[in-house]
Amino acid sequence: MRIGILGTGVVGKTLGTKLVKLGHDVRMGSRTAGGESAKAWAKAAGGKSSEGTFADAAAHGEMVFNCTSGMVSLDALKAAGAKNLDGKILVDVANPLDFSRGMPPTLSVCNTDSLGEQIQRAFPAARVVKALNTVTAAAMVEPSIIPGAHDIFVCGNDADAKARVISLLTTEFGWKEVVDLGDITGARSQEMILPLWLRLFMKFQSPNVNLHVAR
Amino acid sequence: MRIGILGTGVVGKTLGTKLVKLGHDVRMGSRTAGGESAKAWAKAAGGKSSEGTFADAAAHGEMVFNCTSGMVSLDALKAAGAKNLDGKILVDVANPLDFSRGMPPTLSVCNTDSLGEQIQRAFPAARVVKALNTVTAAAMVEPSIIPGAHDIFVCGNDADAKARVISLLTTEFGWKEVVDLGDITGARSQEMILPLWLRLFMKFQSPNVNLHVAR
Repeated sequence: MRIGILGTGVVGKTLGTKLVKLGHDVRMGSRTAGGESAKAWAKAAGGKSSEGTFADAAAHGEMVFNCTSGMVSLDALKAAGAKNLDGKILVDVANPLDFSRGMPPTLSVCNTDSLGEQIQRAFPAARVVKALNTVTAAAMVEPSIIPGAHDIFVCGNDADAKARVISLLTTEFGWKEVVDLGDITGARSQEMILPLWLRLFMKFQSPNVNLHVAR
Repeated sequence: MRIGILGTGVVGKTLGTKLVKLGHDVRMGSRTAGGESAKAWAKAAGGKSSEGTFADAAAHGEMVFNCTSGMVSLDALKAAGAKNLDGKILVDVANPLDFSRGMPPTLSVCNTDSLGEQIQRAFPAARVVKALNTVTAAAMVEPSIIPGAHDIFVCGNDADAKARVISLLTTEFGWKEVVDLGDITGARSQEMILPLWLRLFMKFQSPNVNLHVAR
């Protein structure tokens, strides 16, 4: 599958590298084409990897991952261009973490709205699926680095888009339990896990922590 | 132990009844003494059960449970009286759920503050421990009704108060895993679980759902 990755941070690189290894044709996008970080990634990833602008990456992908910082995601997606996102599955991995008040960060939007919803409203023809925002990058693509049963949450308005993301998560990334939280308003609950996640990260001094739904 | 329960709803009654069964001397408080709900509870609970005003219950307890609705907790605690709470362990079980926007409820405070912190600030001499707010009432006192491993979160500024609450949770209520999230600012993360909990409740059509921390 042709995949676009928006963002050249740890999340974008980790997802991109895994997807290349799985045989996908992955283009990483950043604000300007030819940046050192994206070029170095494409060289190291090998396979079908390339880099370009946000718009290049979005145009390339049948599925597009938003791996930008949550505070700039809407701007990055505007740079990617609505026409390059129309009809695409847009996997929103970002968290609207605001570090301006110091550590731990707070959320710049929560409770009555979410970044996932903001993105869906701003790009109504994109098929937004919120996913993977509740675990550290390495665990996104290799959940077994965290021992025992633990789950990943997804939500979104488009059932087919969600089914395709769930399929990728289970058959390609190895997630055993995907919990579908319903429509995109479920992004509020997924993003509001972050304060707990950050607290657990600080307590256990490890990012390899996740939640399991017992019932 | 002498225990005060503030609030005569399902949470107050469930905690009160369990604590009476465990042999504790429990007084349930409500806005006015002699209310039908509290009287009926005291009669049914038997043992060392009694009822009175919020102030009566708080004065009675060495440990006091705030089981009022989160939106009215500060008022209820003011009625209980700061002098009746000074030095006491105040277990805050409440969630600041605002139903005025319809279902699902939103939080009236979150992200940069929490009900637990508001209570600690308003009653600085009380030893506030946030606990049990993330599970349904029946599971609070009998965690085994939810299958498998699952955890309860606590936080608070007073280490001794927290240790006594953790002891009650483990040795008397049967919790196998208590996750200490640190000082009272951890209440933000505990209360911000509620949107996820409500979503899971709606999805699975059962309140018997809880989280386990995998690491």
